[in-house]
Amino acid sequence: MQKIDMTAIQHIKDLKDVQVPFTLDHAHKELKTCHERELSENKIVPSLEEAIRQAGLQDGMTISFHHHFRNGDYVVNMVMDTIAKMGFKDLVLAPSSLIDIHKPLIEHIRNGVIRRIETSGIRGDLAEAISRGLMDIPVVFRSHGGRAAVIESGQLPIDIAFLGAPSCDPFGNANGYSRDNDKGVICGSMGYAKLDAQYAKKVIILTDNIVPFPNVPFGIPESDVDFVVEVDAIGDPNGIMGGSTRFTTNPKELMIAQKVSEVIEATDFFRNGFSIQMGSGGASLATVRFLKDKMIQHNIKASFALGGITGQIVQLHEEGLIKKILDVQSFDLVAARSLKDNRFHQQISASYYASPHNTGSAVNQLDFVILSALEVDTKFNINVLTGSDGVIRGAIGGHCDTAAGASVSIITCPLTRGRIATIVDKVNTVVTPGKTIDIVVTDQGVAVNPLRNDLITMLTNAGIDLCTIEQLREKAARIVGDSTPITYTDKVVGVVTYRDGSVIDLIYQVKDEEEV
Amino acid sequence: MQKIDMTAIQHIKDLKDVQVPFTLDHAHKELKTCHERELSENKIVPSLEEAIRQAGLQDGMTISFHHHFRNGDYVVNMVMDTIAKMGFKDLVLAPSSLIDIHKPLIEHIRNGVIRRIETSGIRGDLAEAISRGLMDIPVVFRSHGGRAAVIESGQLPIDIAFLGAPSCDPFGNANGYSRDNDKGVICGSMGYAKLDAQYAKKVIILTDNIVPFPNVPFGIPESDVDFVVEVDAIGDPNGIMGGSTRFTTNPKELMIAQKVSEVIEATDFFRNGFSIQMGSGGASLATVRFLKDKMIQHNIKASFALGGITGQIVQLHEEGLIKKILDVQSFDLVAARSLKDNRFHQQISASYYASPHNTGSAVNQLDFVILSALEVDTKFNINVLTGSDGVIRGAIGGHCDTAAGASVSIITCPLTRGRIATIVDKVNTVVTPGKTIDIVVTDQGVAVNPLRNDLITMLTNAGIDLCTIEQLREKAARIVGDSTPITYTDKVVGVVTYRDGSVIDLIYQVKDEEEV
Repeated sequence: MQKIDMTAIQHIKDLKDVQVPFTLDHAHKELKTCHERELSENKIVPSLEEAIRQAGLQDGMTISFHHHFRNGDYVVNMVMDTIAKMGFKDLVLAPSSLIDIHKPLIEHIRNGVIRRIETSGIRGDLAEAISRGLMDIPVVFRSHGGRAAVIESGQLPIDIAFLGAPSCDPFGNANGYSRDNDKGVICGSMGYAKLDAQYAKKVIILTDNIVPFPNVPFGIPESDVDFVVEVDAIGDPNGIMGGSTRFTTNPKELMIAQKVSEVIEATDFFRNGFSIQMGSGGASLATVRFLKDKMIQHNIKASFALGGITGQIVQLHEEGLIKKILDVQSFDLVAARSLKDNRFHQQISASYYASPHNTGSAVNQLDFVILSALEVDTKFNINVLTGSDGVIRGAIGGHCDTAAGASVSIITCPLTRGRIATIVDKVNTVVTPGKTIDIVVTDQGVAVNPLRNDLITMLTNAGIDLCTIEQLREKAARIVGDSTPITYTDKVVGVVTYRDGSVIDLIYQVKDEEEV
Repeated sequence: MQKIDMTAIQHIKDLKDVQVPFTLDHAHKELKTCHERELSENKIVPSLEEAIRQAGLQDGMTISFHHHFRNGDYVVNMVMDTIAKMGFKDLVLAPSSLIDIHKPLIEHIRNGVIRRIETSGIRGDLAEAISRGLMDIPVVFRSHGGRAAVIESGQLPIDIAFLGAPSCDPFGNANGYSRDNDKGVICGSMGYAKLDAQYAKKVIILTDNIVPFPNVPFGIPESDVDFVVEVDAIGDPNGIMGGSTRFTTNPKELMIAQKVSEVIEATDFFRNGFSIQMGSGGASLATVRFLKDKMIQHNIKASFALGGITGQIVQLHEEGLIKKILDVQSFDLVAARSLKDNRFHQQISASYYASPHNTGSAVNQLDFVILSALEVDTKFNINVLTGSDGVIRGAIGGHCDTAAGASVSIITCPLTRGRIATIVDKVNTVVTPGKTIDIVVTDQGVAVNPLRNDLITMLTNAGIDLCTIEQLREKAARIVGDSTPITYTDKVVGVVTYRDGSVIDLIYQVKDEEEV
């Protein structure tokens, strides 16, 4: 059968000489019985090893993972162990994030299986080892929006995505829950994975729950999936849903939460139809409770909640206080089940959530975002990536994306943590630039970025006591004194990028204590 | 702010010399009041003309449209009139299909505004004019799957997509219905439009119904949309939902429908969990009714129905006889409303539906597809594009896609239409190759493709009388005699492509009657 270049037709004025190439010998359909079709034409491959082989993995390729299973994830370690056994080297690992459970990667880095990492964050022993110089090439840190942008632009081409899915049919329609049974784990939204599935050259779904076709509604469509591998387990339900969300009884956090709700109430942005994103930390969760009272009191309803979603948000949605939910990551079981059951709880991709390079992501429609911080400096710069000892212990996540997009970005943090100041002269690592941070709420006072005169006026008019960020810094210094300066080597272990791809800071190797 | 080439990092072994380029002067956020943001940061442009200008239309560009509004569509004519007034020339029109209502395009072709067309089909006066030599360059006809494939591969790059949407928020989240009000028209699935939105360089949504952000669930996400234009009307509800679906009282069609249901019942493919696609023609709709009785009788339920969806299919879904619906196009109001209300009624894109080039489209999972035909020849080739007079009067649609994908493809047609034979020696235009057609059901007999011995055995065992396709042809010829041969000029007016992009037939200019 002759193929013709259709672009050529654009210039053909007369097709008189074109021969009709069609003959009846050309067969486009293999004749199979029903049973043969069922057995042969699905995408299930018998083993992960076989899937890796068929996907064409080669040394030096870039592979990706999602972190929807958080600290319960079995997929990254399972895949990397298999890849290591198969003898591959020099891979670029580009997961949406890495967590404590991924400690075994240390060995794969030492053995040369992993050459380089791009991620939103790293925690635990792996982060500690990298901070102490484990890798030859620095880790590139990107926000969720920044990662989406470079994947979409082709700057970060993914050769193979290995995506764990709580349900998948034999042709690859995958989701973060199952509508057909209650088997296996559940993670809710597959927001980060959706993007990888769309752009990776090859996509392998790992699942412990093969369901009948068609697994709709789907988070990932079969048209994006190449192979399906059934494994015994993809994650630990406790790790997937435990950990990150808790309801605080910490008096400092409750005090901050109360103050945040007062600050929100005092602004003109708190009006019917407002929108909000909140994290899964203690102060954020408590804020929802206080804010709810104020919404009822003023008869104000939110148009939508965005981002990582918790059961607290779902409760307000089900009570009619939040109209719609845009969910890129479900933080707990209540949120995951709501995604399945509530029609206005919508699964969104990382690009829709936060990419700075598409035609407009949802972060730009935020009125409020409530964010945490490891450090805040007197220029309002935020560090959520390295600890006071200089060691990597966090993730950029959507921090700088939402701060840039929201009308009002609010940082919540205690003034001090133990003997460590949170408000400092200069953050160890700049993750989110101060110009995008509007209000800092601590247990010891509230500071507004002087760039936001509008907010200063609103809060002052509402009778909220404000102080300057310098006053907060002084107060912190008075309480805990000056911290010991961290000593670094001159080796760069991390490159921190801003959401537009520019380098916003570098992370250096910390000196081992014996060397200090 | 220095931008660094991240690909270079792959080769950096030591970043000692890299300066940290970050300064606090770099501002990523414009400081605006809430009200300023609301007014300035949405995608609504004041007029279609302004949207066309901002989207950067230039002479010779390729523009696309969807046909979800069928014969009620106002969008194509409105946009082309505006473009013509603005003085653009030589455009390539690449809509998913064109219908009778698009007759005004004749003038735009004559005036040089439209140079070339790629589409699934053309009907009415425009088709007649093209068949009689209106255009210098032949129309390229593609199936829905074939169109998806060339859009995805970049072979058919769309510069600007003009997509009518029954609801859209100010940031571009669009859908084929509204969850917020009952204003304006409704078309249900936006399946063909979803693909154009994803791949076009610029996307303009035209809507008569701006709804609050976020318009979720969405058919088209804001991240795919550049501009939103509010217009008085996007379509005529009667034209959008009327016309194509009707319930037959035609005795021939009822006889065919009864026979189709018997044929389906007789195959091994009719078992619990089977899948089916049916059209919106009279015989198809009647088949649903007969098939329903057989499903209840045998206690058999379908796993899914695919394709263009009718109220008949929805009824079976709501009665629990069809588990899930994959909807690329909603043929009537019942179907459109079901998409809104039934959670297992899922909107799918044209690529997911039928593309031969993705990793697996839904047509491949079909057990049965029931299709119509203008002509069937003794090689089982099907023509759905040109009439017995050689004039273009139809659309490829998903015909060849589903025929290739389904385990059993069934053609339904009367043996003769008036004085015209439907079963012929050679079809005027080959659209779907005979090798992918399994059974032809007419009011005068059933023929099975000799390639399908399995089906011949099943149907014979079930006591269904079969004849050969040659016998059907002879019977038709006996009834209506030989048809007058069509006389053509040597000018090609249409290039018919198969779903893989290959040329399967050419359509020639018909000679005017006075010339004959």
